[in-house]
Amino acid sequence: MVSNFISSHGGSISDANQHTDSSTGWFFMRVEINAATLPFSLEELKAAFSPIAQSFNMDWNISDSAVPKKVILMASRESHCLADLLYRYHEGELDCEIPCVISNHDDLRSMVEWHNIPYHHVPVNKEDKQPHFDEVARLIRENKADTVVLARYMQILPSDVCQEYAHRIINIHHSFLPSFAGAKPYHQAHERGVKLIGATCHYVTEELDAGPIIDQDVIRVSHRDAPEEMVRLGRDVEKNVLSRGLRWHLEDKILVQGNKTVVFN
Amino acid sequence: MVSNFISSHGGSISDANQHTDSSTGWFFMRVEINAATLPFSLEELKAAFSPIAQSFNMDWNISDSAVPKKVILMASRESHCLADLLYRYHEGELDCEIPCVISNHDDLRSMVEWHNIPYHHVPVNKEDKQPHFDEVARLIRENKADTVVLARYMQILPSDVCQEYAHRIINIHHSFLPSFAGAKPYHQAHERGVKLIGATCHYVTEELDAGPIIDQDVIRVSHRDAPEEMVRLGRDVEKNVLSRGLRWHLEDKILVQGNKTVVFN
Amino acid sequence: MVSNFISSHGGSISDANQHTDSSTGWFFMRVEINAATLPFSLEELKAAFSPIAQSFNMDWNISDSAVPKKVILMASRESHCLADLLYRYHEGELDCEIPCVISNHDDLRSMVEWHNIPYHHVPVNKEDKQPHFDEVARLIRENKADTVVLARYMQILPSDVCQEYAHRIINIHHSFLPSFAGAKPYHQAHERGVKLIGATCHYVTEELDAGPIIDQDVIRVSHRDAPEEMVRLGRDVEKNVLSRGLRWHLEDKILVQGNKTVVFN
Amino acid sequence: MVSNFISSHGGSISDANQHTDSSTGWFFMRVEINAATLPFSLEELKAAFSPIAQSFNMDWNISDSAVPKKVILMASRESHCLADLLYRYHEGELDCEIPCVISNHDDLRSMVEWHNIPYHHVPVNKEDKQPHFDEVARLIRENKADTVVLARYMQILPSDVCQEYAHRIINIHHSFLPSFAGAKPYHQAHERGVKLIGATCHYVTEELDAGPIIDQDVIRVSHRDAPEEMVRLGRDVEKNVLSRGLRWHLEDKILVQGNKTVVFN
Repeated sequence: MVSNFISSHGGSISDANQHTDSSTGWFFMRVEINAATLPFSLEELKAAFSPIAQSFNMDWNISDSAVPKKVILMASRESHCLADLLYRYHEGELDCEIPCVISNHDDLRSMVEWHNIPYHHVPVNKEDKQPHFDEVARLIRENKADTVVLARYMQILPSDVCQEYAHRIINIHHSFLPSFAGAKPYHQAHERGVKLIGATCHYVTEELDAGPIIDQDVIRVSHRDAPEEMVRLGRDVEKNVLSRGLRWHLEDKILVQGNKTVVFN
Repeated sequence: MVSNFISSHGGSISDANQHTDSSTGWFFMRVEINAATLPFSLEELKAAFSPIAQSFNMDWNISDSAVPKKVILMASRESHCLADLLYRYHEGELDCEIPCVISNHDDLRSMVEWHNIPYHHVPVNKEDKQPHFDEVARLIRENKADTVVLARYMQILPSDVCQEYAHRIINIHHSFLPSFAGAKPYHQAHERGVKLIGATCHYVTEELDAGPIIDQDVIRVSHRDAPEEMVRLGRDVEKNVLSRGLRWHLEDKILVQGNKTVVFN
Repeated sequence: MVSNFISSHGGSISDANQHTDSSTGWFFMRVEINAATLPFSLEELKAAFSPIAQSFNMDWNISDSAVPKKVILMASRESHCLADLLYRYHEGELDCEIPCVISNHDDLRSMVEWHNIPYHHVPVNKEDKQPHFDEVARLIRENKADTVVLARYMQILPSDVCQEYAHRIINIHHSFLPSFAGAKPYHQAHERGVKLIGATCHYVTEELDAGPIIDQDVIRVSHRDAPEEMVRLGRDVEKNVLSRGLRWHLEDKILVQGNKTVVFN
Repeated sequence: MVSNFISSHGGSISDANQHTDSSTGWFFMRVEINAATLPFSLEELKAAFSPIAQSFNMDWNISDSAVPKKVILMASRESHCLADLLYRYHEGELDCEIPCVISNHDDLRSMVEWHNIPYHHVPVNKEDKQPHFDEVARLIRENKADTVVLARYMQILPSDVCQEYAHRIINIHHSFLPSFAGAKPYHQAHERGVKLIGATCHYVTEELDAGPIIDQDVIRVSHRDAPEEMVRLGRDVEKNVLSRGLRWHLEDKILVQGNKTVVFN
């Protein structure tokens, strides 16, 4: 009925993907329509499609790819993920706006400001982190962010923020989850003697490092690699996995089903 | 002092590897000597080297690559790992003797006997598994096995066997350990929504799926892959990881340090 | 119009993929229909759809997944690809019938006959290869083969056979094409000092090793790997790439466009 | 004799690798000595070792890891490889000095100068490129560069420069050589319909894209990837391969044998 609806209004589909989850019976669909072929504005399109969606009990969303998403990047002291995202943004690889970068440290200001992006240093008081989180929440709201990327932010966001921005906060964890959740995963990996280390990009939920996984990748290590070498090798995996996950998110290619993702890449 | 000892007797080193573990200060070394260049039998060589080893407090071993190791393969009903090892043995890829195959089921007899290898069907009584393990231990001893490979054997060997054959029993676990230890790892992986599945080859210790890891590998999966598909895709990873690990073991390229391995491949 | 046609007859689509080639404007589509939901036999379905296909000038095909394809395997002396395909067939991984295996040597007879598959030894006379090819063509025809797999067959099929079975003869070449076409690719790779070696599965055309590529993969090598080691390492890549390509072919997931493939996997 | 020489002077070996090339009989060795354990300056060490080297007809070199190499980066308009190397340098991943960056365009000046590295814009006159190359050669000499990295420089250096800096000029070619040498390799790859694209890091010789290969890697592509997508995907491979190759070069881990490399990584 989706393709019928589109074609009956003269719309042309440029890309389409479907998936049926055999265990739940859920049906997933993503359709890219050439907007110029439809006689609708975005609002009119939503209004016209709404009754169909309702009659089939769909969980649906339409977004306009001409309107770039607003993405706030959050970091701490480690720069590799932030630098990589800024570089890709600079080169036009990431179709988004970056209204600002927020960090609990001031170290990366110069790198961010070279890109003409505002840098907010919001320090964390270990005794009472709430003022930090309040200010972060205020900045997200003020900048009307669609998406928040935790580019090695190293703080655990409070539950209310996780819930308000469900499926819109992306984190990179520096292990191949579910192995080595929590702190110092490369040291945990070294301790266990694994032969591959990895990184995981996932949506943030209230439970630490347990949200829906968007993408993962690994790299080979050996007995010669001390934890410090693993940290260095892992950085490249983290950067690639995070930028890939963010890209799919910006292109609305990720659908969330419970604690899993359907990625139409 | 090792190279001095060898060269002072006219020996020629065909391959050598060293590694210092920076956290413990342990020094690992593997030397391949062209036997024809030494004026010693294996026993004479051991006798001549022993005082040096003692004075440096070495943990050492010398083996003769002209004497193939005796490897017993154990399986259950799933044939992919067994079939792969038998094929590689048949093609001369694995330098060993296979005195017999032991299984708690009779399903794979014909495949094994085609290779002219004796097949022992040793059933498991779920009420009392001890008779099974006794017979397995007897067969291992009778065949003077150097190494036992659990090629998807699916039973947990008793502690005394694990201890007697420490660092000589190789298992393949069908997950990227430490994730998804225990039963039905592909179903666990599907449940968690990971984007890569893997396999781990390790030496067996008393603690289930927790022994020193020899090798690991992964393969990409997506939301389209039901657990059954993961099982199918994972088989190829299991086969490759197990045969690679066994090969290194047969070539004495693996040194065990605590719960980790140094692999000089 | 395809989905309209299907849904207007009550048909249910279990999987669908589309692709538009931007350089040529060609549109590719693959639809899997749950046959039980259509009121047609295969022949009736073809007759009903034909006018629509014609009016849109489609190049189309419908096949019944309940009817397994007939696949003839051809080999020479090297057994790894043949053994792998036979094993997967045996385990039910490949949904096909294998009416026979043809080889110009008798070496692999016992392995094939263990699987209860007829083995035809058709020797090649180097002075005049035509009788060999005539007999091969006769066997293909006699067995009504849908597909021929050259599992390291090492002979170059004559043009007329390539043309008659266009897009139905699958070859595995033991290099990452277009590098190292022709003879002894691992030796060529060693000579050039590459750091990865690969294998390529492709449809056979008249021009040697130049047909549409179905799949490729690589494995890392180093200065330590002599050509013989590359041959051993490459075997695993060849097996995996060939079995993957054949599987997609059997599932009608490959569409050929000029000298390229669209693979809806 | 190398280890004898070192140990007889009380030196301690922190890492050692050996390799015998079986086809030529050449023996390769790399030894890392803890300098503090030797009673020599670098010059004294060279003088003491020289007679031994001569008597065994060795081709040898000793370098002091405390003295970082001087590396000149050359680029054109594309920034990804340059930005990646500058970032790694900034983070301390690359143990070297970068006296300057040379480009035939002025586009990347701001990025380079942010790192406090001098930027030389040396334009190319297409009618007569010699003045450009003269100025490049002058800058290399003036800065006493040990190594030159062509980070997508896109010009072909004259023979005399290639010879003067043999095994010291590192290039990144954006294909999996020997496939697709020369211009527009991603377009060539798209045309051929390959399923993996790659990048190759090699020492520059007079013959274009034919020098000793240091490292290579690949990434999977599909029919959905137009040449522009391949360019984007390939960038990540290029960056990783180039930075890895440069790192090994800086650590003196690469030995060149004819047109091949021995990489002791």
